[in-house]
Amino acid sequence: MTNRFYDHIKQYVDLSPSDFDSVLNRFELKKSAKKEMLQTAEHHCNTLYFVLDGCLNMYFLTEKGTERTVQFAIEGWWLTDFLQFQKGGKTNFNIQAVTQTTVLAISRENYKALLEDYPIMERYFRKVYQIAYGASLVKMRYLYDLSKEEIYFHFTENFPEFAQRVPQKLIASFLGLTPEYVSEIRAKKRS
Amino acid sequence: MTNRFYDHIKQYVDLSPSDFDSVLNRFELKKSAKKEMLQTAEHHCNTLYFVLDGCLNMYFLTEKGTERTVQFAIEGWWLTDFLQFQKGGKTNFNIQAVTQTTVLAISRENYKALLEDYPIMERYFRKVYQIAYGASLVKMRYLYDLSKEEIYFHFTENFPEFAQRVPQKLIASFLGLTPEYVSEIRAKKRS
Repeated sequence: MTNRFYDHIKQYVDLSPSDFDSVLNRFELKKSAKKEMLQTAEHHCNTLYFVLDGCLNMYFLTEKGTERTVQFAIEGWWLTDFLQFQKGGKTNFNIQAVTQTTVLAISRENYKALLEDYPIMERYFRKVYQIAYGASLVKMRYLYDLSKEEIYFHFTENFPEFAQRVPQKLIASFLGLTPEYVSEIRAKKRS
Repeated sequence: MTNRFYDHIKQYVDLSPSDFDSVLNRFELKKSAKKEMLQTAEHHCNTLYFVLDGCLNMYFLTEKGTERTVQFAIEGWWLTDFLQFQKGGKTNFNIQAVTQTTVLAISRENYKALLEDYPIMERYFRKVYQIAYGASLVKMRYLYDLSKEEIYFHFTENFPEFAQRVPQKLIASFLGLTPEYVSEIRAKKRS
């Protein structure tokens, strides 16, 4: 399954199979059961995850105690609290496995050493983050410009792989909608 | 004024003064008058900007023709449509100078060559984008968790340098509020 990681990297940079083996050595392969916590709020953020299979949900608890998703990650996506991972601070976000999930996990220390030893991985991550940041600005546009109903259908039509795999209530949370509202507009569309 | 760029880079990576001169050579120093357009929607996105002085506003036009800000940039910030800059596609965003603004501009070709010739700049941009992406996830949290009034005061208290320099109506647009609403809550706070 780690071949998926190699295929992903090769989409961005040219990395030899032997260098890939050395890169992979810095990671830990980890299987999480459904609902298992990978990161807990109020703790130091010291791990970056790459999803090989399954789905992770990064969320925070509102003052009222509701879980609100800020990002989820399926195969080929990176996830952590990137700001706190950079400086090793305490995070406000939880990361939980939505389904049974297999990840590659790398510690801050190993990440730093990896980038030191393999400058090609600086390029890889520069491209990954540049695209992720660019996509977040485009997301702002949809949040501002579309009605709640349009946001939901835009998302499910443009990201069918998420819509099929992620529970409706998490998609609702990610889009800033209530699960009840999503049920309502789905029923309206079917009728 | 280009010293500001060197100081910025030095916060992230170690770059010698002579290498900085070579890096700087790939950029064009450009002064824009207030309201001047630096990027126009429906055109190819081929330029990345670093603000030395002043302020840029990246916005799109809603279907109703209203300008909505997705990001602005003051000294020390990078701005472009990062997704389209990566692939040279057409952008949906406009970039306009809010005040008289001095930028360093780099073309896609020069950016690519710069990263080829100076791997240390891959590290620099990797860090810049990692932080920008991380901050965008934290912003999602505030957009979801806070009331509109709290969003406004959170922003102006945490980013006073923006609040002082950027017109109220742009801050309102960036935060997804109407200018009328911002006037109202400011008046309420003063009273």
